[in-house]
Amino acid sequence: MRAAMKYWDDIKVGDRAAYRPRTVTAEEIVEFGRKYDTQPFHIDAEAAKETMFGGLIASGWHTCAVMMSMLVESLAETKAAGLGSPGIESCRWPNPVRAGDTLTGESEVLEVWPSKSKPMGFTRGRTRLVNQRGELVLELVGLSMYARRPGAAA
Amino acid sequence: MRAAMKYWDDIKVGDRAAYRPRTVTAEEIVEFGRKYDTQPFHIDAEAAKETMFGGLIASGWHTCAVMMSMLVESLAETKAAGLGSPGIESCRWPNPVRAGDTLTGESEVLEVWPSKSKPMGFTRGRTRLVNQRGELVLELVGLSMYARRPGAAA
Repeated sequence: MRAAMKYWDDIKVGDRAAYRPRTVTAEEIVEFGRKYDTQPFHIDAEAAKETMFGGLIASGWHTCAVMMSMLVESLAETKAAGLGSPGIESCRWPNPVRAGDTLTGESEVLEVWPSKSKPMGFTRGRTRLVNQRGELVLELVGLSMYARRPGAAA
Repeated sequence: MRAAMKYWDDIKVGDRAAYRPRTVTAEEIVEFGRKYDTQPFHIDAEAAKETMFGGLIASGWHTCAVMMSMLVESLAETKAAGLGSPGIESCRWPNPVRAGDTLTGESEVLEVWPSKSKPMGFTRGRTRLVNQRGELVLELVGLSMYARRPGAAA
């Protein structure tokens, strides 16, 4: 059986989605850092030892990108009619992501409302990622857009 | 003459930093999308034409990563003693970044306060990026940490 497409109309406050585990390697941390965030604690394991972080850590934006890769995997599995995001309301990196960390996480829908002008709707949701020691590495409240079920917005 | 190191103690509310222009290519948009955000409008120029965006657009997280590359270039030029960030307070992507767009932008310091426990201080700042048509593509309010001038925190 093929799963049915999941539209905004199918999403309810309190809905949760759990993400598959994802391991972040030193190579990936350094590759992202060299391209987008060349602070020493993101690109050089030796230099990072001398910083307040005591070793290589992922750029916070890399942590967000990894979260997104987990989220889009979940969207694809549920055939969600996602239409991107207008922005995020808050994002905290309470603990750094270190080389070899395996992240898991989940999202919860906090609020839903339809667009008044387009055949789509919005959700506000909270996403949390933790590492293999249970330490919170990302807490984000963000907005998402989803297509309405055909005919539902009329 | 070498510029002096810029510490938290040297940062004042109202300080502004302008970023060097940065062009975002289709190749880079697709490369980031394939790794972290495989929604069709981020990875497939043809499929993207059929979406509400009418063409390929950068993942919002890619736009944030590009902003970070512009910010760390500015940090390096001013020899700022940056210590990363605990998080961001808000982030909006009012218009998408499209292939070939050239982004410019600036940050403004909104608030500064010292750490009570460590020889560092915090700043809260607003960053805006616009494209070559003057359209706002990113508005972000974020927190940053900087080292105190040696001896200043005592």
